[in-house]
Amino acid sequence: MTSVLPRRAALGLLLATTGAAAPRAQPATDPLPSWREGPRKQALRDFVAAVTREGGEAFVPPAARIAVFDNDGTLWVEQPAYTQLFFILDRIRELAPRNPQWQEDPTFRAAIAGNLQEAARGGMEALLKLAGAAQAGNTPEEFQRLASAWLATARDARWRRPYTELVYQPMLEVLAFLGANGFTSFIVSGGGVEFIRAFSAGTYGIPPHRVIGSTFALKPGEQDGRITLTREPRLDFVDDGPGKPVGIARHIGQRPIAAFGNSDGDHEMLRYTTEGAGRRLGMILRHDDAEREYAYDRESHVGRLAKALDEAPQRGWSVISMRQDWRRVFPGDA
Amino acid sequence: MTSVLPRRAALGLLLATTGAAAPRAQPATDPLPSWREGPRKQALRDFVAAVTREGGEAFVPPAARIAVFDNDGTLWVEQPAYTQLFFILDRIRELAPRNPQWQEDPTFRAAIAGNLQEAARGGMEALLKLAGAAQAGNTPEEFQRLASAWLATARDARWRRPYTELVYQPMLEVLAFLGANGFTSFIVSGGGVEFIRAFSAGTYGIPPHRVIGSTFALKPGEQDGRITLTREPRLDFVDDGPGKPVGIARHIGQRPIAAFGNSDGDHEMLRYTTEGAGRRLGMILRHDDAEREYAYDRESHVGRLAKALDEAPQRGWSVISMRQDWRRVFPGDA
Repeated sequence: MTSVLPRRAALGLLLATTGAAAPRAQPATDPLPSWREGPRKQALRDFVAAVTREGGEAFVPPAARIAVFDNDGTLWVEQPAYTQLFFILDRIRELAPRNPQWQEDPTFRAAIAGNLQEAARGGMEALLKLAGAAQAGNTPEEFQRLASAWLATARDARWRRPYTELVYQPMLEVLAFLGANGFTSFIVSGGGVEFIRAFSAGTYGIPPHRVIGSTFALKPGEQDGRITLTREPRLDFVDDGPGKPVGIARHIGQRPIAAFGNSDGDHEMLRYTTEGAGRRLGMILRHDDAEREYAYDRESHVGRLAKALDEAPQRGWSVISMRQDWRRVFPGDA
Repeated sequence: MTSVLPRRAALGLLLATTGAAAPRAQPATDPLPSWREGPRKQALRDFVAAVTREGGEAFVPPAARIAVFDNDGTLWVEQPAYTQLFFILDRIRELAPRNPQWQEDPTFRAAIAGNLQEAARGGMEALLKLAGAAQAGNTPEEFQRLASAWLATARDARWRRPYTELVYQPMLEVLAFLGANGFTSFIVSGGGVEFIRAFSAGTYGIPPHRVIGSTFALKPGEQDGRITLTREPRLDFVDDGPGKPVGIARHIGQRPIAAFGNSDGDHEMLRYTTEGAGRRLGMILRHDDAEREYAYDRESHVGRLAKALDEAPQRGWSVISMRQDWRRVFPGDA
């Protein structure tokens, strides 16, 4: 074993020493280079400055610096449909030869034909039927391997790039900026928890245990003398809308001080966060950039944003304009 | 804002430099001073050395170094009854004047009289009735304040010390030893998650989001224009026995590589951990020290240890003897 402990102790001492001696200058480099100067970038900087200033009236100790992020439409692209839905459709097509009975069912037939609109005609019930057939019956580890393998090869139809490259560079900078200032960030998503865990560490630097999402029931059992956990085709927690505060309280056990969302499904999470006492930050990403990404809000079936947008001014939430506030959208952009 | 980023970068550079230059010597100080030399201390050291040796065949990257700890009887005293049960009884007595109807019920009457044996005569059903009456109807934040306030004043009957001082010093050293070697540790307990969260950060250095436990249903609502979450008197997840692997998969999303328990309630957690591929560590704390703590296993109503003890040799689990392996038991001991 290497001598980790003494070296750590020496570093701790050094940190304390340089901490006392370092001049309190502005950072030499901009931690948010993809953000244009303006009210939203200023709101981010002001909030972090206020809650990290020791002795200041808004100071929050690092242990309470909890930030929560929606995923679809907040950290990565959610149009023309949720990425997980494309995964589900590809899985249905892959499994179809082994399930000839699916041809009797119009929802499955449409999914196998790749007709998303037709498959979705049966509403949430139809989608949950597809989701269960495509994703259940395996262990969490097996499912994550399936999702990882798919993410490694699948390509978005518009940009012809992997979905994990269609994440928002400015939001990656927010995650890094908060992390460097002692925050612990969590993903709080309506999507399936194990789907997001398949890429969150590599893509966002967020480890699996800091991902909260919707879940299938897990059934414990035994096979070949080993414990098994089987994902059943039955949602036992929906981490969306009023479910988000429940998921946060259950999993994190602390009320966040900062929340980032983009749709009405984040309304309760934004409220729960900003209704707490002391300085809080609520931010809504508005997709108003049809040229570089998409423009949608009130009329959209995916990521509908109406109520949260209307209430933003009175609740003190900042509305990020993708078009105005972001210098670039994706990591690969110039 | 202070110049956090450049200082961190400079430190990172320094760490990389000293890391390359440092001689690979044994640590100057023993990270497990409360452990006597012997097979268990050696098993701990060997395991950590093996999984942290870069290039070694048992190497595990830091992101996968997940360790799980039972709480009652593994990190702190669980005799003569679970600490949370004493909390429940005190709450029942405190609330009794406002609930005169409780006097009609023999379970409540026994609890109010402080007769634990009589109150427990109705088995799990009776205890859950008391637990619900004592602990539900509030928000998670309110409940944690109640639990914190109680822990600050309540005293164990034998040692006359706060329960949070009746934690095992050798296990605190294991937590610190693992943390210094890049592990992330979680509590996985049959106890109520919010009860443990009230003291885990201060006592164990484990933040609330790394505590997994049994949960009451949380009901979202609204009061005075603010979102509320109300703890209902109904268990919706029991994090014990076969529930522990479910809680781990749900919350952590990774199979641990090390597990520490003390009773048959930890059997499935120990199995789930050590049935994974690669080097694993399973350890059982055996309470065989009536003089300094307690001696109990097969016949005990609290923390019964039989099946896990019988299977330990074939499964490769180390059985820690409190009497033989620990130089001292509590932090306050000489």
